[in-house]
Amino acid sequence: MAYRCEKADAMRIHMDYNNMMAENIGKNGICEDELAKMAEKSAECIYAMEKKRGSMKWRDLPYDRCETVERIKKTAEYVRENFESFVVLGIGGSALGPIAVQQALNHMRYNELPREKRSGPKIYIEDNVDPERMESLLDIINPETAMFNVITKSGSTSETMSQLMIITSYLRRELGAAYSKHIIATTDEHKGNLIKIAKQEGYETFFVPDGVGGRFSELCPVGLLPAAVCGIDIDALLDGAKYMDGICSERNIYANPAYMSAALEVCAMEKGCNISVMMPYADSLKYMADWYAQLWAESLGKRVNNAGEEVRCGQTPVKALGVTDQHSQVQLYTEGPFDKTLTFLAVENFRAHVEIPHAFDDIPDVAFLSGHTLNELINSERRATEYAVTKSGHMNKTIILPEVNAFTLGQLICLLELQTAFAGELLSINAFDQPGVEEGKNATYALLGRPGYDDKRRELISAGEKTARYII
Amino acid sequence: MAYRCEKADAMRIHMDYNNMMAENIGKNGICEDELAKMAEKSAECIYAMEKKRGSMKWRDLPYDRCETVERIKKTAEYVRENFESFVVLGIGGSALGPIAVQQALNHMRYNELPREKRSGPKIYIEDNVDPERMESLLDIINPETAMFNVITKSGSTSETMSQLMIITSYLRRELGAAYSKHIIATTDEHKGNLIKIAKQEGYETFFVPDGVGGRFSELCPVGLLPAAVCGIDIDALLDGAKYMDGICSERNIYANPAYMSAALEVCAMEKGCNISVMMPYADSLKYMADWYAQLWAESLGKRVNNAGEEVRCGQTPVKALGVTDQHSQVQLYTEGPFDKTLTFLAVENFRAHVEIPHAFDDIPDVAFLSGHTLNELINSERRATEYAVTKSGHMNKTIILPEVNAFTLGQLICLLELQTAFAGELLSINAFDQPGVEEGKNATYALLGRPGYDDKRRELISAGEKTARYII
Repeated sequence: MAYRCEKADAMRIHMDYNNMMAENIGKNGICEDELAKMAEKSAECIYAMEKKRGSMKWRDLPYDRCETVERIKKTAEYVRENFESFVVLGIGGSALGPIAVQQALNHMRYNELPREKRSGPKIYIEDNVDPERMESLLDIINPETAMFNVITKSGSTSETMSQLMIITSYLRRELGAAYSKHIIATTDEHKGNLIKIAKQEGYETFFVPDGVGGRFSELCPVGLLPAAVCGIDIDALLDGAKYMDGICSERNIYANPAYMSAALEVCAMEKGCNISVMMPYADSLKYMADWYAQLWAESLGKRVNNAGEEVRCGQTPVKALGVTDQHSQVQLYTEGPFDKTLTFLAVENFRAHVEIPHAFDDIPDVAFLSGHTLNELINSERRATEYAVTKSGHMNKTIILPEVNAFTLGQLICLLELQTAFAGELLSINAFDQPGVEEGKNATYALLGRPGYDDKRRELISAGEKTARYII
Repeated sequence: MAYRCEKADAMRIHMDYNNMMAENIGKNGICEDELAKMAEKSAECIYAMEKKRGSMKWRDLPYDRCETVERIKKTAEYVRENFESFVVLGIGGSALGPIAVQQALNHMRYNELPREKRSGPKIYIEDNVDPERMESLLDIINPETAMFNVITKSGSTSETMSQLMIITSYLRRELGAAYSKHIIATTDEHKGNLIKIAKQEGYETFFVPDGVGGRFSELCPVGLLPAAVCGIDIDALLDGAKYMDGICSERNIYANPAYMSAALEVCAMEKGCNISVMMPYADSLKYMADWYAQLWAESLGKRVNNAGEEVRCGQTPVKALGVTDQHSQVQLYTEGPFDKTLTFLAVENFRAHVEIPHAFDDIPDVAFLSGHTLNELINSERRATEYAVTKSGHMNKTIILPEVNAFTLGQLICLLELQTAFAGELLSINAFDQPGVEEGKNATYALLGRPGYDDKRRELISAGEKTARYII
């Protein structure tokens, strides 16, 4: 279902930033002048983006795909035909993208459908090392009909490698040497442990290209294989990303939704908005907010800027869901401090149409709902919430999807990736590293007695001594 | 499994606030002096809490329960024996508590277990009006074996009443007049539409007691019936709450975990921490963070204080999950701004024990994991993250559960409710209302053409006019 140009344009997603502007929300908003200054400042960042284009390999993924995508589709077909469950072992960028895409494009209760109504095996994405969760997984899968996809670029992610060790031992016990046909490894082609293990054991392999970091990896085999296994149209996903990448090559930020969105968020950060809420009004997009939360937090949460100066940068992303969180968070969003921006995700056309029938016509409090549809209700509530937060003077913008499909989802992924990269430029920070996670990793190594971490272990034990009166 | 005192004490949850203190995290922390001042200020708030005790009816729920709890258990047994699925229709406080308790105390893949391994019917908690979600629900349930529990205190919640109208119409079509035996209503005993409908149609009913608001309602039939239907020990849940309520009746805040926790958060707010992260290190507690997010946001997010002065109060709650979000959020938590507090939920003993076997002993990067357990790994990572955020100077505290069971969960619910109520006192705001949601509700009514909302409708249409150049 790759789109021709005219159809693509009808499926184009848009960003509406009316309610970021002072003219609509009052003094807490952004003035035209401020935006103009930001646009000026943007010029050199746009130049930097173009100069660094070659090193941002994740931007090439929608363009440079022929062989890999064909092999993914072939493997996916084999898995669909021969397996009853497909289990992803991965964490962070290896899980958040696959989860978001499954939720968006599969039936909402995919795993609970009977086999003949599902386009592939049941899918499980295991992104934690909770022993209760691992045990519960083994309670419900059958090793003979389960395929595992272990995803870690470095091959040294403790969580994923622990999962793999548990699963290989389990499969060997149940299946003997044939076990290796139940594992597909997605990892670096040349470096790291997983590729070594995969070659030695004979796993099928897919590769994470050089220069594609975890949180920018959804459109490489990391995300494409799990999607294809469920019958998702990965060509359309990539076409959507390519289409949006084209739109966002525009140098005028007033016509570039990714760059404008970044500029608006950076303006808002300068005004003290240290919180960025993403609130999709569709259950299908719920986990896009989780995926975005990693992208935004890990890319922009940085201690120093490119000049090495301490800046302690970073908006904290918050995941919300419309209309559900109107009954949880919107009280705070309307009446609380002016410390946040909201990004609504709106869907114009849902893939289902549910009428609210006449039922209790003698009760005016509910009778007015009859004759409407859930489609009208959810979108009216979105407009109503937009109205309420705008009226209370809180900055908000809306990303509008004509509908949720692989093509619009590909656009959304690309839009948010480019927005994040560009925000990094505007903030003069490195959006592509994550030095702050090293301390915790090393501390875990030390606690588990990894050789070479004895000093750290001693430090941790002494740091872990607690004052008893502060424990109640 | 109600606990005798000595066993209860072994199951007591504790709060460790060492890392909120300046002596452990440096200049961003709280000094003993500040805490002493807060304790002084607390005295009148403690007095106020005691004075208002009578109106906080939610505090009575664990004490005053005999008849209702017995009837809940009887109904639950009937549902367990006669139905294959149990669907909650509710939103906000009517859904978040039931979701959190299911996740904590049921098998982690409860709905996917075969019937004989489940302690009750499959459970679905429908807290949105997305048409795709409603359609997908009807795809997988069988009306003949489905029981619905519609929960709304007021009986006028548009989302829940729309769901009810769809479901009654569906059930009537499928089952005829007998449909009414498939609906249980949980609502106000005297006021509102749902009680009227329930009486007219002959639904079984349970009541939300007076003075128990949505976000404080988990321990009344709102939460207890869905829990009991899955075989959860609701007596132990209530016993846990009662036990913690006893502990938190202590007037000395240095011995009162709920009051101290509130005092620490208010201190942190005064220091500019407008974000409160809850990060359970257990998949089972994941949705406790969602439940808490409503409690904290809706209770404390207030425009005015009790004197009517504009204060624009409210910390924004953020839900995270350990270890998963180490690969998403911890980069920001360690390197980012000093604008947040973290509350870890730690579990000492998990209900499963999973060893990491020897598998790839020739690869030192992963071999050190062998011989450990996932139990050690998840808790080492928690300690490592605590160490890393502490070392980077970010305030954090830990609530420690000896294990996750109904008794400890009841304690946790009570602890967080009391913490929230007390924070409201310290901030001199009304923690029990939610005036900020009215604007959005009225706007929805207007958009759906409810009689009497014509002016609002006109206002909305004019406010909804967008400047085209701000849409890209």
